[in-house]
Amino acid sequence: MSTTVIILAAGKGTRMRSQLPKVLQPLAGRPLLGHVIDTAQKIKADNIITIYGHGGDRVQAAFSDQKITWVEQAEQLGTGHAVKVTLPVLPKDGISLILSGDVPCISQTTLQNLLATTQDKGIGLVTLTLSDATGYGRIVREHGQIQAIVEHKDASDEQRQIKEINTGIYAVSNAKLHEWLPKLSNNNAQGEYYLTDIVAMALADGMTVASVEPEQAFEVEGVNDRVQLATLERQYQADQAKKLMQQGVHIIDPSRFDLRGTLKVGQDVRIDINVIIEGNCEFGDDVEIGAGCVIKNTTIAAGTKVQPYSIFDNAVIGENTQIGPFARLRPGAKLAAEVHIGNFVEVKNSSIGLGSKANHFTYLGDAEVGAGSNIGAGTITCNYDGANKFKTIIGDNAFIGSNSSLVAPVQIGNGATVGAGSTITRDVAENSLAVERSKQFVKENYPRPQKIKK
Amino acid sequence: MSTTVIILAAGKGTRMRSQLPKVLQPLAGRPLLGHVIDTAQKIKADNIITIYGHGGDRVQAAFSDQKITWVEQAEQLGTGHAVKVTLPVLPKDGISLILSGDVPCISQTTLQNLLATTQDKGIGLVTLTLSDATGYGRIVREHGQIQAIVEHKDASDEQRQIKEINTGIYAVSNAKLHEWLPKLSNNNAQGEYYLTDIVAMALADGMTVASVEPEQAFEVEGVNDRVQLATLERQYQADQAKKLMQQGVHIIDPSRFDLRGTLKVGQDVRIDINVIIEGNCEFGDDVEIGAGCVIKNTTIAAGTKVQPYSIFDNAVIGENTQIGPFARLRPGAKLAAEVHIGNFVEVKNSSIGLGSKANHFTYLGDAEVGAGSNIGAGTITCNYDGANKFKTIIGDNAFIGSNSSLVAPVQIGNGATVGAGSTITRDVAENSLAVERSKQFVKENYPRPQKIKK
Amino acid sequence: MSTTVIILAAGKGTRMRSQLPKVLQPLAGRPLLGHVIDTAQKIKADNIITIYGHGGDRVQAAFSDQKITWVEQAEQLGTGHAVKVTLPVLPKDGISLILSGDVPCISQTTLQNLLATTQDKGIGLVTLTLSDATGYGRIVREHGQIQAIVEHKDASDEQRQIKEINTGIYAVSNAKLHEWLPKLSNNNAQGEYYLTDIVAMALADGMTVASVEPEQAFEVEGVNDRVQLATLERQYQADQAKKLMQQGVHIIDPSRFDLRGTLKVGQDVRIDINVIIEGNCEFGDDVEIGAGCVIKNTTIAAGTKVQPYSIFDNAVIGENTQIGPFARLRPGAKLAAEVHIGNFVEVKNSSIGLGSKANHFTYLGDAEVGAGSNIGAGTITCNYDGANKFKTIIGDNAFIGSNSSLVAPVQIGNGATVGAGSTITRDVAENSLAVERSKQFVKENYPRPQKIKK
Repeated sequence: MSTTVIILAAGKGTRMRSQLPKVLQPLAGRPLLGHVIDTAQKIKADNIITIYGHGGDRVQAAFSDQKITWVEQAEQLGTGHAVKVTLPVLPKDGISLILSGDVPCISQTTLQNLLATTQDKGIGLVTLTLSDATGYGRIVREHGQIQAIVEHKDASDEQRQIKEINTGIYAVSNAKLHEWLPKLSNNNAQGEYYLTDIVAMALADGMTVASVEPEQAFEVEGVNDRVQLATLERQYQADQAKKLMQQGVHIIDPSRFDLRGTLKVGQDVRIDINVIIEGNCEFGDDVEIGAGCVIKNTTIAAGTKVQPYSIFDNAVIGENTQIGPFARLRPGAKLAAEVHIGNFVEVKNSSIGLGSKANHFTYLGDAEVGAGSNIGAGTITCNYDGANKFKTIIGDNAFIGSNSSLVAPVQIGNGATVGAGSTITRDVAENSLAVERSKQFVKENYPRPQKIKK
Repeated sequence: MSTTVIILAAGKGTRMRSQLPKVLQPLAGRPLLGHVIDTAQKIKADNIITIYGHGGDRVQAAFSDQKITWVEQAEQLGTGHAVKVTLPVLPKDGISLILSGDVPCISQTTLQNLLATTQDKGIGLVTLTLSDATGYGRIVREHGQIQAIVEHKDASDEQRQIKEINTGIYAVSNAKLHEWLPKLSNNNAQGEYYLTDIVAMALADGMTVASVEPEQAFEVEGVNDRVQLATLERQYQADQAKKLMQQGVHIIDPSRFDLRGTLKVGQDVRIDINVIIEGNCEFGDDVEIGAGCVIKNTTIAAGTKVQPYSIFDNAVIGENTQIGPFARLRPGAKLAAEVHIGNFVEVKNSSIGLGSKANHFTYLGDAEVGAGSNIGAGTITCNYDGANKFKTIIGDNAFIGSNSSLVAPVQIGNGATVGAGSTITRDVAENSLAVERSKQFVKENYPRPQKIKK
Repeated sequence: MSTTVIILAAGKGTRMRSQLPKVLQPLAGRPLLGHVIDTAQKIKADNIITIYGHGGDRVQAAFSDQKITWVEQAEQLGTGHAVKVTLPVLPKDGISLILSGDVPCISQTTLQNLLATTQDKGIGLVTLTLSDATGYGRIVREHGQIQAIVEHKDASDEQRQIKEINTGIYAVSNAKLHEWLPKLSNNNAQGEYYLTDIVAMALADGMTVASVEPEQAFEVEGVNDRVQLATLERQYQADQAKKLMQQGVHIIDPSRFDLRGTLKVGQDVRIDINVIIEGNCEFGDDVEIGAGCVIKNTTIAAGTKVQPYSIFDNAVIGENTQIGPFARLRPGAKLAAEVHIGNFVEVKNSSIGLGSKANHFTYLGDAEVGAGSNIGAGTITCNYDGANKFKTIIGDNAFIGSNSSLVAPVQIGNGATVGAGSTITRDVAENSLAVERSKQFVKENYPRPQKIKK
């Protein structure tokens, strides 16, 4: 049976007080709608129909690389209306999951459970049992079977004791959607078409309404304002941290851990407080990440230790390297095994060979450094002439003295030495020493500058 | 009717275990008493009387710029005694709010509500309903009217079931204070004069006692030790974060946000984890602040993105600039629009023109940089000769090569170029190139230093 | 009466998903077992017997400097079996405390209370009262006396209402252990020898079973997986923060404070958010530590202010110094009073005299700096020639110009001056000026590099 995912994403989200359409607000660094689309893809939905409205251009642009059928809901006339506008593109058979672009955390497992339980019934919904259900639509059951969904304001005192609520997430056979949606009425106080009414239609048709509860309550939380967004962000992050801990990651404080993307881990990875991981990262066995690191789209091989406050973006890091604190690896940084990158060092678009070291105050930009070389403190590759960028190539076992400036394009041969404080503009041959330096001039009994009277 | 605010601020705060008088302990970077004085000013109190005792000199000095009537309570003989010592300076008519210097979070709204409800009654108090009121003075009511305040130890079993408590915050007509306070007795176990007794006097006079509850419970929390101070700090910060989120700020983790002062924001401001904001700051639309930034007394114009771990103090930042990570702007840093300040860059008392860049390891102190200039990595303005500080002036579209030292006072003209590694001591004319460099000396087959045997 | 501490430390800890034996997993930077051993030493145990199993070599190696009797439990046949294997080395008289290597937070006070209450009874245990005791072994009492410990699965409905549980921590007379343990049976579903059975034996012998509750519930929490480890870490850290606050430390956010070792403090110490303290540290009066600092094995004298994101390791810091932000003090950094160390400055194995300053971008390695000297921005001590490290000695009142390279071994005399941008290879005499610099060369109307067409 083919599965369609219908995502309601037309709301403006006025309470976010933002220029950005609500479904583009980020949770864990990804738009709310993106989370729902990801989950739709995980369950291998045959097609994804997204209903847009406010800010539709921006919403569509944000997912232009995805195979999505976009349907406009020009006027916001209720959830029932939103799904109704999809009918022209909705398959005649199969089943649809009806999700919300602002309920981002619904899980693959919950949806698969919903599909499984709904399959032979034709309609199913996700319900949630709360300790305090005030304000929500209650699930009225008899002998365990759903009899009705009653809105809080319409509920009797007895019904208000019910703790099971409707989350607004449905699975419905497409045939039934084609049958029911045209019959929805907006004859109610709000003048809106309510999707909930299809449950009554199903019951009137003598159908059994299936239901499942989500694995975790936060899966069905919606986002309407910044406070809710922040609350959900923490729940989502806590859940991610828990899953990583269950895989064996030693997270020192799960309430101070942020994963905004994906992280693959080996064994005995240790992550100290306040680390942020973005994009797609992978850490090998025994990798240790110090406090406050920000790591994006980076692979770190086994045994590497990263000291606090290091920032990596699109870097590839070999085994048993030592990095930081205060190190910055920018896109294209590629470190071989056993490399040492120390404090206040920046590496951009450069490869550094086995066991080479740049321990202090160094900028390596557009450089290739061989194996076993030592880059002294304060060394700068002058890779930019104001118009063009050039490469600096340093061989194996080279020694670059401190405070040197290597004016690219320039090559430093294997085993070559550069004297401290030199500005090197010409290539340095293998095993040779290059120094750019004047004679040290001395003036004895030098009269120091005095404070100028003003 | 004139409003007086009386603030009890004489307590020593022994349990803080501090040399600092308790009311000077900081909450969100401001003394506890300062919060109360600020609130008194917000409600436009006609006069503020503060009762000091322990550490009175330091307390008065801390608020020497404020219009406050200081009254000494030489001996601490109870809250009633504290208010009594103000009688010589207390107006004969009008109304007084009686607040505590160690209950810092009482809000403007709660006090205005208290004043409004008390106005035609002559006495009112702030009460609070708790789930567990054990230990507190209970508010005994009959037909909704306050009949008594009964201390926990004196309460009957039935009274101990009462959840409404006295917070010790009062509004009282000054006429009544002049009448009642001289009649207070210290005939009790503690030998103290209790302010609470005026409620019994009012009831004995046949008066109705007004009451209001605070908007939020933490408003009436007092601070007696460091644990309470830390707890209140988090409640206060959570409340500030919530208010900013309600204004539309995207705070990634409100429990990791600290505002120690005031923050004005445009739309779609985004603040990542662990940011500290101090003093008076203002962020324009779409400003993004990366994790761990510490920002004090700084204005940031729209569209600017600040990367993690940047520290600003008294800086002014233009539109669409890019700053950090690990950037430090010290007092007097003034960045025009579209400026780029990169990692490990320090700017002090310097202006940087439109679109200029200093992307790595640079110290700009006492400098003026024009528009469109590029300051190479490792450039240092040598602004200090050991006795005096001098200016470095760099024109528009200048290019300063990496690792240069600009020895102030010095001017680099428009369109001028400085060669990498140069120490520049004389002015460089427009469009000219200045280089300070020796010939690169080479020694082939250089015998590297060997490990010295010890 | 001699006290033995028996620690069960043989478990593998499969659910940790780690190569590291469970009892070596760190809590607050110290192995779980290390916490228990520390507590055993605090109560002055006469001997410590530790039962090892999985990863026994690593476990023993981790505590090779401690006086511990190691006993192997080759097969894990239950807690009773574990204690039984100690009998050959267990004294015939005295009392034993039976602890678990994965219950790290049991306190000295609780153990002393347990010993005191057990002393004249022969057997005692630590019990805990929970709001929800589901799953735990219940303490059945009559007239206040312990009658039995009933496992959850064996408990009657009435017994399941009992909130008091067995924590598995015992004090038992050694004579009784020698009597009872050989009689333990594994005739049960699991086929294991349960230590709990000795309670039934004691009751059968007509003995009274003593009990105490721990001071704090988290003391008896065990660690079986990473989630439990993280939860306990936070409880342990919260407790440490609370104790420091009770001593008068101003911790801005106790939930963002990590102490992995010990901290001695003077009065009015202030610690901002996200500070990590490791090893043994000591802070004098009025010391302020800025946000995000990581401080290990460091002593900081009174009045010193440390700005955010400074990292210290094995440093000694004098009074009234100013350090940071982004300062790094590595092992052997020794700062006298009133020293200033500014942003992006690294100090390693160097002493810095009274009032000297290194405010920006400086590397001081293997240096001795006298009093009153000023080290300019970008100064680097070139302490390494690729094979050896040498010292840089700078006298009093010296002035090192910015961007200088001091090639060690080298001495800069008292009152000497080094010109900006100089590479100094020869000693500089007292009061003299040394400059290494070429003539500033100028080329007018310099044609700037143009963008190369590709």
